[in-house]
This record gives sequence, C-alpha cells and structure tokens, in this order.
Amino acid sequence: MAVKNLLGDRVEPVPFQRFEEVFHALATGKVDAAVIPIENTLHGSVHENYDHLLNFDLPIIGETNVRISHSLIAHPGVKFKQIRRVYSHPVALNQCLNFFTANPQLESATYYDTAGSVKMLMKEKLLDAAAIASSAAAEIYGAHILKRNLEDDRGNFTRFFLLTRPGEQIAQKPTKEWKTTLVFTTRNVPGTLFRALSTFALRDISLGKIESRPLRGKPWEYLFYLDFLGNVDDANCQKALGHLAEMADMLRVLGSYPKGA
Amino acid sequence: MAVKNLLGDRVEPVPFQRFEEVFHALATGKVDAAVIPIENTLHGSVHENYDHLLNFDLPIIGETNVRISHSLIAHPGVKFKQIRRVYSHPVALNQCLNFFTANPQLESATYYDTAGSVKMLMKEKLLDAAAIASSAAAEIYGAHILKRNLEDDRGNFTRFFLLTRPGEQIAQKPTKEWKTTLVFTTRNVPGTLFRALSTFALRDISLGKIESRPLRGKPWEYLFYLDFLGNVDDANCQKALGHLAEMADMLRVLGSYPKGA
Repeated sequence: MAVKNLLGDRVEPVPFQRFEEVFHALATGKVDAAVIPIENTLHGSVHENYDHLLNFDLPIIGETNVRISHSLIAHPGVKFKQIRRVYSHPVALNQCLNFFTANPQLESATYYDTAGSVKMLMKEKLLDAAAIASSAAAEIYGAHILKRNLEDDRGNFTRFFLLTRPGEQIAQKPTKEWKTTLVFTTRNVPGTLFRALSTFALRDISLGKIESRPLRGKPWEYLFYLDFLGNVDDANCQKALGHLAEMADMLRVLGSYPKGA
Repeated sequence: MAVKNLLGDRVEPVPFQRFEEVFHALATGKVDAAVIPIENTLHGSVHENYDHLLNFDLPIIGETNVRISHSLIAHPGVKFKQIRRVYSHPVALNQCLNFFTANPQLESATYYDTAGSVKMLMKEKLLDAAAIASSAAAEIYGAHILKRNLEDDRGNFTRFFLLTRPGEQIAQKPTKEWKTTLVFTTRNVPGTLFRALSTFALRDISLGKIESRPLRGKPWEYLFYLDFLGNVDDANCQKALGHLAEMADMLRVLGSYPKGA
C-alpha cells in the first residue's frame, strides 16, 4: 500500500525478510528505491530503521501514512468454516486479538511478512488455512477476501519513508509543503534541548515530531529525532541548521521531502 | 523479571492477556499493584499504555529497566532434537529471527505471553515443543533451559512502570533521585514546545525523555510525553508545572517515582 501511495502502480515491489536487507538492496543497486516503516500510532517509532538511516547514506525523499487494515484472505473457493490456521506477521496477528478470541477454533501461525503469507498460501494451495494481510495483497496474488477490518483498533496508522540513493531523483508530485527529518545528539545538561529548539523557534519554523532516545552505553547522552516543516535548501532552515550544528555533538539531516497526506 | 526487580520475591504475579485488563484489575482492587511496559529500546514507546495511564487514575510509583534475554525452555528431559514447535509471544518470536533461520526444522507458534507459553507446555506435558521466555519463567514453572540468549540484538531493554491506586503506598527503597512523568497537549504553533520547555530550562530541571505524538483526528495538535528529574512535591518542580499549566491545553502528572537502575 505504501509503495502504491508513493510511486503508483508502475513499480514492482520486491519484498525482503529484514529491514537491513532493504537498505542493502538499495545501497548496492539491486532496487531503485526503498519504502520502510518509521513509526506506528500504536507501537511507536521503529528505532531500528532510524539506526539504518544513520548507518546508510540513503536520503528520505517521500513519506506516506497508511491506515493498517487487516483482512482475512484465503485461496479462492475456500470457505471460512474450512479454515484451521491463520498465517501472518506476528505484529499483525497481535493486532487482531479480538478476532482470535471470537474464533477459538483458529490457530495463529507466524510468517515473516503479511503479504508474503498470502503469496505462500496461494503457491502451496492451502485449503485449510488463511492469511491476515491488506486487501491489496489479496488483489496482487489473486486470493479471496473472507473478512475485512479484523484489527482491534481502527486508529492504527503506519508512517513510511521513501528512500533513494544520494543524487538520484524519482518523479513525485510537485509540492509547496516540505518536511525535513534530522537526528542530533547532545549531552544531557539542563537546558540543552531548550537551546537546540531555540534555533527553530526563533525563526518561526514549526516542528512536526520530536523524540528523545537514550544512547546505548552512554547514560547521559541522548539522540533526538526531529521533523520540521521546511526544506533544507530554504535560507532560514539553512541558518537554523547552522545554529543547531554549533550546539549538537552530531547532526545529520536524513532528508527533505513533500509532506505526506 | 520486572515484578521481581520492583517488589522482590514476596509478591505473587498475576498475568493478564491484555494491558487494559491489568489496569482494570488494579482499579477494581483485584490486584494490589500493576507492572506495565512503557518503552523498549528497539520498538519505541507503548502508546497504548500511555493512553491507559491517561484514562485510569493509577499513579506511577516506580520504574525499572529489564534487559530482554530470551531462553529456549522445554519440559525437563526433552532434548533439543525432539523439538518441532516453539511457542512464544509474537514480539519475542520476532526478536529471535536468527535462531529460526539457523534452525529451519522449528516452527514458530504464537502464544499470548512468553512466561504463559512455558506454563502451558508444562501443564500439557508437550514433549515435541519448547517456549521462548526469560530464564526466570523456567525457574517459576520448573522447566528446563535448553539454550540462552536467543535474541538477535543484545541491546534490547524494556522500561516498566509500577502502578498503584491513588493514595496507597507500597514499601520501596528510599531514594534521593526522583523522576516525574507527565503528559501535556499544545497546539502546534511555532515555538509552543520551546516555550513549554523553558519552564524546565529556566529552573535547571533536567529532562529525561520527550516525545511528541500526533493527536488522532486533530492534525495540528500534539500530545507530549515528558520525564524530568525531580519530584512533583519539590518547590521548583511545582513552579515549573504551574508555569507549564498556563501554556498547555491539558496537563496530567502521571506520577513521581524513584529513578530506576
């Protein structure tokens, strides 16, 4: 869904088992762009992907928010009462606890990927199993949707980033509204963050997200994730970043991109 | 492990299937205290539990950080080569992907709780299955540890809060180092957060955590989670909170508690 939102129907999605493999595939030219989840309204930030964004040099060039809606999907012709097992990614299974409580005859089975579990049951022609995935996955693999909106919480959104290689461009809709994501570290003395935020407040730049994360093995230092409204090429954003660089121990701009819906 | 760290061996842990049930059990007097996870170094904040902290009036009176270390646990006498299935909570299964890749003969099966999966395989006397849980769970249920440190990432810590009912006390170690957790909302106009943080910076109060969270259905408003070092009863903290209350649309102190290890 995120790939479709960001790049339309003209691209072929290539799944990987782990986030790090997605970054590697983009860095080594195996794929032309990458789409990774960065935060979820129920489960918080995907710290692992912030780490990969710092370790790889793959700029963020887009974002999108996808409502996570889970469907029960089976091989065409399979009826609900035939199903004994339900495959999906563990996080998706965990988001449909009401469904499993209401249907105790169903056993949940973990699979590495939601869409991948649909692909698997179509390939293996499983007639006593179903998968939990997005309705788009049923469409892609020619499977049949038995039930929609299995998720316990309808307010479940995941934000995704679109990444590319440095210097490469991907055609996107023109925009006037930009966002920039950056990461910085400071020592935890009182007022450090206050001074860091002054660089934006004094220039009337709006913040979109801020989050502190303790640095492993450095109990008094913090990593901050910050989004602001604006493009890194804007003159006042440039000045704010110069000012912030004076105060931060480390500052990395991860990308400027059109604000997603 | 978290219950043990916070309350020692004298208490009997009572498991529940969902976080909301834990809050209900405490609010209705079914249990005397509650221990809930609030954030994880890999997976971020447990937003659901922040929501419950706002919806229930159950103050935080303690915190602890537990390193998440997963063991492979089976019925005594069961050997590794006999095992075909491994039960655990989906998040724990997902944190041991290297182990499952290295042992493709093992099928993972989701269970509602890590420790609960050990209890289940002991009760059902399963001889071809194992569970992934903490070594403490093996001890509690008299099971056998086959392998330790199954987790892919050793830097995996979860922070837990200890909750009680308003006005009730639980004996804890005396401390001079206090932390306070609060939640506030503001409108997203440039400089709002900067002004909010000035209340702490101008009084030399150190911040321990800050995180913004978009408010559902209110695209321009944010909820902030904030921890500071100090007790809500300290005179300067009282002044800072009074100052913050002038600027915030909503402000709730969720509790002051001894700083955890």
